[in-house]
Amino acid sequence: MNGIAASDGIGIGKARIVNKPIIEVTKQNKVQTDVERQKLTDAVAMTEKQLKNLEDVAKRQIGEDEAKVFEAHQMILQDPEWMSSIEQILKEEKCDAAYATDKATRAFIQIFEGIDDAYIKERVADLRDVSHRLLSNMLGIDLVDYSLIQEDTILVGRDFEPSDTVGFTNPFIKGFITEIGSASSHSAIIAKTMGLPAVIGVPEATKKIEEGIQLIIDGGTGEVFESPSTDMMQKLTTKLEQQKEEAEALKKLITAESMTIDGIAVEISGNIANPKDAVHVMENGGDGVGLFRSEFLFMDRETAPTENEQFEAYKRAAEILKGKPLIVRTLDAGGDKHVPYLNIASEMNPFLGYRAIRICLDRDDLFQTQLRAILRASHYGFVKIMFPMIATYDELRSAKEAVQKAKETLKKLNQPYDEAIQVGIMVEVPSAAAIADILATEADFMSIGTNDLTQYVMAADRMNELLGNLNNTFHPAVLRMIYQTIKACKNAGKMVGMCGEAAGDKLLIPLLLGMGLEEFSMSPTKILKSREIIRRLDTRALGTLVDTVMALKTADEIKAYLETFSRRL
Amino acid sequence: MNGIAASDGIGIGKARIVNKPIIEVTKQNKVQTDVERQKLTDAVAMTEKQLKNLEDVAKRQIGEDEAKVFEAHQMILQDPEWMSSIEQILKEEKCDAAYATDKATRAFIQIFEGIDDAYIKERVADLRDVSHRLLSNMLGIDLVDYSLIQEDTILVGRDFEPSDTVGFTNPFIKGFITEIGSASSHSAIIAKTMGLPAVIGVPEATKKIEEGIQLIIDGGTGEVFESPSTDMMQKLTTKLEQQKEEAEALKKLITAESMTIDGIAVEISGNIANPKDAVHVMENGGDGVGLFRSEFLFMDRETAPTENEQFEAYKRAAEILKGKPLIVRTLDAGGDKHVPYLNIASEMNPFLGYRAIRICLDRDDLFQTQLRAILRASHYGFVKIMFPMIATYDELRSAKEAVQKAKETLKKLNQPYDEAIQVGIMVEVPSAAAIADILATEADFMSIGTNDLTQYVMAADRMNELLGNLNNTFHPAVLRMIYQTIKACKNAGKMVGMCGEAAGDKLLIPLLLGMGLEEFSMSPTKILKSREIIRRLDTRALGTLVDTVMALKTADEIKAYLETFSRRL
Repeated sequence: MNGIAASDGIGIGKARIVNKPIIEVTKQNKVQTDVERQKLTDAVAMTEKQLKNLEDVAKRQIGEDEAKVFEAHQMILQDPEWMSSIEQILKEEKCDAAYATDKATRAFIQIFEGIDDAYIKERVADLRDVSHRLLSNMLGIDLVDYSLIQEDTILVGRDFEPSDTVGFTNPFIKGFITEIGSASSHSAIIAKTMGLPAVIGVPEATKKIEEGIQLIIDGGTGEVFESPSTDMMQKLTTKLEQQKEEAEALKKLITAESMTIDGIAVEISGNIANPKDAVHVMENGGDGVGLFRSEFLFMDRETAPTENEQFEAYKRAAEILKGKPLIVRTLDAGGDKHVPYLNIASEMNPFLGYRAIRICLDRDDLFQTQLRAILRASHYGFVKIMFPMIATYDELRSAKEAVQKAKETLKKLNQPYDEAIQVGIMVEVPSAAAIADILATEADFMSIGTNDLTQYVMAADRMNELLGNLNNTFHPAVLRMIYQTIKACKNAGKMVGMCGEAAGDKLLIPLLLGMGLEEFSMSPTKILKSREIIRRLDTRALGTLVDTVMALKTADEIKAYLETFSRRL
Repeated sequence: MNGIAASDGIGIGKARIVNKPIIEVTKQNKVQTDVERQKLTDAVAMTEKQLKNLEDVAKRQIGEDEAKVFEAHQMILQDPEWMSSIEQILKEEKCDAAYATDKATRAFIQIFEGIDDAYIKERVADLRDVSHRLLSNMLGIDLVDYSLIQEDTILVGRDFEPSDTVGFTNPFIKGFITEIGSASSHSAIIAKTMGLPAVIGVPEATKKIEEGIQLIIDGGTGEVFESPSTDMMQKLTTKLEQQKEEAEALKKLITAESMTIDGIAVEISGNIANPKDAVHVMENGGDGVGLFRSEFLFMDRETAPTENEQFEAYKRAAEILKGKPLIVRTLDAGGDKHVPYLNIASEMNPFLGYRAIRICLDRDDLFQTQLRAILRASHYGFVKIMFPMIATYDELRSAKEAVQKAKETLKKLNQPYDEAIQVGIMVEVPSAAAIADILATEADFMSIGTNDLTQYVMAADRMNELLGNLNNTFHPAVLRMIYQTIKACKNAGKMVGMCGEAAGDKLLIPLLLGMGLEEFSMSPTKILKSREIIRRLDTRALGTLVDTVMALKTADEIKAYLETFSRRL
């Protein structure tokens, strides 16, 4: 079985098929309140039993601390205010138990989210978990407890949401396989961030792979082996050992400079989704953060984070980085990143839809709140602002005006911020690459987002498993758009970086360096390997490489050429 | 009220709100066969009554000929084979009447479609109509009979399908308004082809406009006037008169050459969806057909058209054109053009999905059948082949190999075709524009499809009414991609044309001509106006225009500049 090589590494474990249930609650009115009340009581009892059991198992097999969370969950379940609120809705609206539970919970969460307190915030996360379990029990849906998995496991699912991947920190999870997606889909990006092997886009994997069977996945080649032979097992175990040794060897580069043989220094930075990830970037010796995906602060909640909440997150990341640059990308909602409370109408082609800067420019409150939060954080480190999905000069001008407005508000409030903060753009819409010279007159820096740029230049959805061949940064058209952007920035004296997957691709690094790229931002786990490559390159020899590659006609030819070049290094 | 100006002209009439029902039949098994049989009998009776009534009304108000179709429909309804087939399914599958009707009808249509006979084909269309009416009656859905509208009417709907627009030939239909879409959506293109005023993308039009109210729409400005004042009525009636006079005056250019003051000849051609449209192109003095959208031969059917059926259609168009060029675009299915029997899985982003050449290269039978049909038609006129959605050099090579294979098959069968047939590509994926020089080594000609090119370059769905500002060919990024494509063709000595909406835009024509565009293919109703503009231009003065425009930074500036230029002409 074969899929897309999404996150390098060998994973060995038993197959666990995860058919994630989607809980959708719609109000039912033709119900008997007595029956619904009984459903609620039964579901509460079952949830209590499960939580007690989880607590016991966790205590025995994981540890006291890990068990405590389930104790807290049981307390929430016994909260009389929550329960009476559910029962009241049941009675007043004469509706079903699931709807009443959902409505009461949302109301509670909304109140709690207004309160700016770390303790309350954790309780909200707990409440969300417990209500999810309660609803699942009410509706007869089975839940998977990732944290309770106790043997080496490869998860197999249609796709995994950012909220699933939280549970992937369990060390028994050795990798995962999905049916849909591509190397640049979210689950792939998360896997790379966590250094977890992953194979993406294996058609019908949840049907074809048998539960409990022994699996080996090679996230570097996209191969999946079911019930592997002893020989195969031996071979892959050896490969796994080699990978571990290589990772160990790379650690000596943590404090090394990202500099070529001929003394050209570049930045090798990390992409992060929350402040905690910044620790990971530092541990891997990153030169900074080239992309803070701020939308993750907005997801899996009922309301937008407050200015203070955002400020704290950006500030924490800035402080962790100790003066190294932190590029915060403003909210990139829409597309495949669903933020329910923004009330974006469902779209026929979300990737070509109302998203990112397009939304922010229309919603002044939302945008101003975020900009003020980032500006305030800029007082505590080296923070830069970056706008996603810029397609026109007008959009960039408007976005910069919004920054100016936020600065003036803060000035009136005597809040400190970095007056000279750099404001840049993502180059991911083909339009931005085509007019990079025009945009460079207004942007302080650019960062090329190769995942989206590739899907738009090739008109091929990066989540569509039928279009893997097209969704490939090695296509000469994509490389030309990238080269054109780099040249435009160089001509204008503006910093140019890249924060798409290509920035950490060992084959592309020499080419991109030769084109003049100055900053490479990637999954933190790839930083050291990339630095090792950079340190073996001599930019004086790369002009020929660029000219040769750019004269080739197809992605296959280019990839083959870069492979040969890479082997000779 | 305001929308997008989609098809020029003034339309005056009463509002008719059309909420098109979508009939979806899913098999129901918990039914009583007796009850379902009664439903069938009742629906047949009601359908018969409606058809009789339609026949009477048509006879009285339209004419004997128009009434005959309803007589034929009544005969179909009495077809004992069809009815007994429905009843048999009802009995054997113990299912509901709607499912049985749908299944029996599909089986009949499939059999008929295998027969290559013009008379049978018409009966299939009739059978489809009657079964649709029968199902609607069975499911309690109201039908609109466009052909029976007897007073000046402006239709107001969410959107209109190609199958709706057939009924728009009724001269009482004076225009339409839709809620969704853009100037390049299908209903807009059809409106332009028919010369029918249309305003697209008026949010909630079906809710806000009152049924039966007097409406005026200006398809040139996008304005909608409800219950207009006498003054307004006067003003717009005058404008309507002027438009009629102008159209009359343009008729003298039908036989004129498409040539500039300084003697540069270009081709001004028409875009068509079926052979009949070619007549329309000739009546408007077109220099040929720059785009035959062959996918319309594949839509609204149960199976793909046979080689002979396609051959007849292409041959007819070629013959109507009497030696003028006919560019047949191979099947562009997928995206928003749904062809159910191709079994394309539903996609998250169909415009970035599995469509057009991507499908054809995977389905040899389908592609070979079409290519043989086009090649055979090339014996009867000046036919060229054009591939849609080409993104890579490999795709073009593979598609050309398919043409070679089709030629060899025909050679073996001693079927005549034009050995020197030209094979070209659409430039609509940004990638194709970016590597136009590479593609020009293999393509005999290129035709720029501005509708898709714009939506991909700007990453903005052309059907999404929130993104109208981005979906605009005047953006410098789009114009640069166009200019780059034209230059690449010129350098390689290959013909370069355009078949997107921009080709017929009076503001863009001077710019495109200045860039070196050689063929302009557009809605037939725009041909004469475009020829009139071309005949007033001097290419020697256009170099300055191109340089000035290409130095501007925004779409608004460019549009304003071109408006000034156009006024001075």
